[in-house]
Amino acid sequence: MFNKRTRIKELLKGDKIGEEVTAMGWVRTFRNNQFIAINDGSCNANLQAVVELGTQNEETLKRITTSASVKVTGELIASLGKGQQVELKVKTLEILGDSDPEKYPLQPKKHSLEFLREHAHLRFRTNTFGSVFRVRHALAFATHKFFNDKGFLYLHTPIITSSDAEGAGEMFRVTTLDLENLPRTQDGKINFAEDFFGKSTNLTVSGQLEGELGATAFSDIYTFGPTFRAENSNTTRHLAEFWMIEPEMAFYDIEDNMDLAEEFIKYLISYVFEHNHEDLQFLESRLKEEEKSLPQDKRSEFGLIEKLQFVLENPFERITYTEAIDILMASPMYKKKKFKFEVKWGIDLQSEHERYLVEKHFRKPVIVTGYPKEIKAFYMRQNDDGKTVAAMDILAPGIGEIVGGSQREERLEVLLNRMQEMNIPAREMDFYLDTRRFGTVPHAGFGLGFERMVLFVTGMTNIRDVIAFARTPDNCEF
Amino acid sequence: MFNKRTRIKELLKGDKIGEEVTAMGWVRTFRNNQFIAINDGSCNANLQAVVELGTQNEETLKRITTSASVKVTGELIASLGKGQQVELKVKTLEILGDSDPEKYPLQPKKHSLEFLREHAHLRFRTNTFGSVFRVRHALAFATHKFFNDKGFLYLHTPIITSSDAEGAGEMFRVTTLDLENLPRTQDGKINFAEDFFGKSTNLTVSGQLEGELGATAFSDIYTFGPTFRAENSNTTRHLAEFWMIEPEMAFYDIEDNMDLAEEFIKYLISYVFEHNHEDLQFLESRLKEEEKSLPQDKRSEFGLIEKLQFVLENPFERITYTEAIDILMASPMYKKKKFKFEVKWGIDLQSEHERYLVEKHFRKPVIVTGYPKEIKAFYMRQNDDGKTVAAMDILAPGIGEIVGGSQREERLEVLLNRMQEMNIPAREMDFYLDTRRFGTVPHAGFGLGFERMVLFVTGMTNIRDVIAFARTPDNCEF
Repeated sequence: MFNKRTRIKELLKGDKIGEEVTAMGWVRTFRNNQFIAINDGSCNANLQAVVELGTQNEETLKRITTSASVKVTGELIASLGKGQQVELKVKTLEILGDSDPEKYPLQPKKHSLEFLREHAHLRFRTNTFGSVFRVRHALAFATHKFFNDKGFLYLHTPIITSSDAEGAGEMFRVTTLDLENLPRTQDGKINFAEDFFGKSTNLTVSGQLEGELGATAFSDIYTFGPTFRAENSNTTRHLAEFWMIEPEMAFYDIEDNMDLAEEFIKYLISYVFEHNHEDLQFLESRLKEEEKSLPQDKRSEFGLIEKLQFVLENPFERITYTEAIDILMASPMYKKKKFKFEVKWGIDLQSEHERYLVEKHFRKPVIVTGYPKEIKAFYMRQNDDGKTVAAMDILAPGIGEIVGGSQREERLEVLLNRMQEMNIPAREMDFYLDTRRFGTVPHAGFGLGFERMVLFVTGMTNIRDVIAFARTPDNCEF
Repeated sequence: MFNKRTRIKELLKGDKIGEEVTAMGWVRTFRNNQFIAINDGSCNANLQAVVELGTQNEETLKRITTSASVKVTGELIASLGKGQQVELKVKTLEILGDSDPEKYPLQPKKHSLEFLREHAHLRFRTNTFGSVFRVRHALAFATHKFFNDKGFLYLHTPIITSSDAEGAGEMFRVTTLDLENLPRTQDGKINFAEDFFGKSTNLTVSGQLEGELGATAFSDIYTFGPTFRAENSNTTRHLAEFWMIEPEMAFYDIEDNMDLAEEFIKYLISYVFEHNHEDLQFLESRLKEEEKSLPQDKRSEFGLIEKLQFVLENPFERITYTEAIDILMASPMYKKKKFKFEVKWGIDLQSEHERYLVEKHFRKPVIVTGYPKEIKAFYMRQNDDGKTVAAMDILAPGIGEIVGGSQREERLEVLLNRMQEMNIPAREMDFYLDTRRFGTVPHAGFGLGFERMVLFVTGMTNIRDVIAFARTPDNCEF
């Protein structure tokens, strides 16, 4: 039994004052040959362990360097110094693992986020990434708790798939064929019948269609798993591999869907408020610091916590796509010809349009509904006007689209017609169509890009900084 | 707002008796032109909705067929009939979606599991799969709750990876190269520099190595995500795509690791006892029914619930590999030459050996430790005997290996030597070795195959029946 330590988060609560305790962790700093700041990842704050002069071997003290791992035992006492409430009065000190300060890549100075991205295996040991990943954890757990408490069933939809029906984007091929020796059919084509699954397969872009199969039996399901886009997008908002949450609800219309999405986002924020306040405070100060290098008008108007508080306390704005176009066309931006992309009914809203609506016009999250059917997927429910579908996108300040969803087309004939118009082969979708053939129900769902939500809550600005090991074009390290 | 229903699980609790309620769901049966059994997936039991003679349109009643979807509103009353405590006295009845009984693939008779596997999109609507997937959900949520309550951080390790260091098995290639037109280097080889990630990439077989990177900063992490094996194994225990839970703990030795794994498995069982008793009862009776076709000696000795109760209440047996070999060699099976595979120190335990230990000798879960280093991975900590490593496998009755884990080799030199012996290139593993260079710590972890745990708890016998849409050789439907 090695694991007889108390987590630093527990120790800092202060209710163990007077007890002999053991802490283990990694050294952040060692000051005056006396004060060791130890972090074990359980919280942002360090434990201060105080070595009394002359009580420890000098050779041992020399080995207390940044990122060395230590085990300290001693009495927890009320702190005499500033900055912490408790400290550990070291009785025994053991170096578990050395860290050569000449070789350790992370020096006790501020590193750029770019540098840390290249040392992603060590960046967890920094204040910033410690807080980011604790918040990410909290958001993930809150997601499961939210849906479980509501009686939703967590469905693991498949990662490897043989269909590209969603049409959400470029896909990665999955294969076990020997590329140097590809099997061929008689007419010279690659013979995917010899591939592992006996056909051509890809990584999923969405679990929605399978989610609908679950919802039409369990009423309410959600997925939370990795999804993939083989798009050559080197932006601060795109990843080739990212995690998505996709609830799908039978007996829901588009209004129910919007209500649930808004409630969910607010729940996530309030959960992090309750469980990660220290991390949020750190991230807020980090953001403020980062923005000092920006011109005044590019800085955030609100602090991070204030922004989240505002989102929590105010209803999201709900407008139709048609209203959104009207607002854009009536804007000073439009009149001064400052939009790069054309604005007219029928366009797909561009990032600049979404930002205008969210950041300039409404200054809060906006739910846009009733998009033209031409720019949306085949499965979205057609509205009575014949032109629009019951789609909904939620746009968030600084992030853009954070949720995309819709009421699904539950009417078999309407769905079949739309699939024909869009050249989607009904034969391959027979399993999906069965849900419309046998006891079809009004249903709806949405997808929340998990990393975008983590960006929003942490105030980080590059999506590579909120996932452990980012996969982007030409980048698959660790 | 469409979603103004109460879940059937709620209605059956009985505390809404006397209230007017609305239920929605799918028809299971319709008896005597009067009693509609409705299921909405929230629980195994159906709601009985009672249509009083003459109160509903005859044309509507004709449309109440198996799997039609309905919306019923009326007073919830104490049931007059047997088999249920409450029933809904129908005031209004609406068919949401028809289901042509001539075409609906699932007839109200017992279908084979094989048949249902081919209709996996509809099998959720059966009693068996309803219960299986509700238990699966409960096990997934309990996993998150167990680790979150203990202060573990949920880490999403990457799915696409460029390393095969774990050596756990055959991998799937992930590529965006045009297979009909593969780019070549000057010396004629396939030029993976032109692939999406600029190198050759695969689907992960384990998140462990990345998990160790997290654990050596956050102390305790766990992963819960999909993993892949491109092995041509058409058995009842193997999937090409399956979900795995991999906790990794700094400051843990092998004893701590065993304690945690045993506590975790018992927590999962007790959680399901608490939350899914009705499902377990159904699954127990299903198993009993299924086993009626087996000869007496092939049937389970205990009922499902009794088996789980026994596992919960008794400590797992803990033996060394060497002891396991001794037990096998002293067994009647060995003496009568009934083992198909050789038994001697150094062998990898075969399924028949594991079953003997677990099902015949100890009759409970067994943790085997101290395996020969030759049959285990490079990262496992070497014991002082120079022959064995601090590995641990947990073997469960009827399932075989359900957990595989080890204390990790934290000593840089020992690890490097072992890698050299095993021809694992240290250069590609530099990021991993950094955790041993900079503040290395004793640490340990394990992997639990989630589907095997679901098999164990549900009493199902084919792993394809406990995952929504199974991926196996030549099979990638839905």
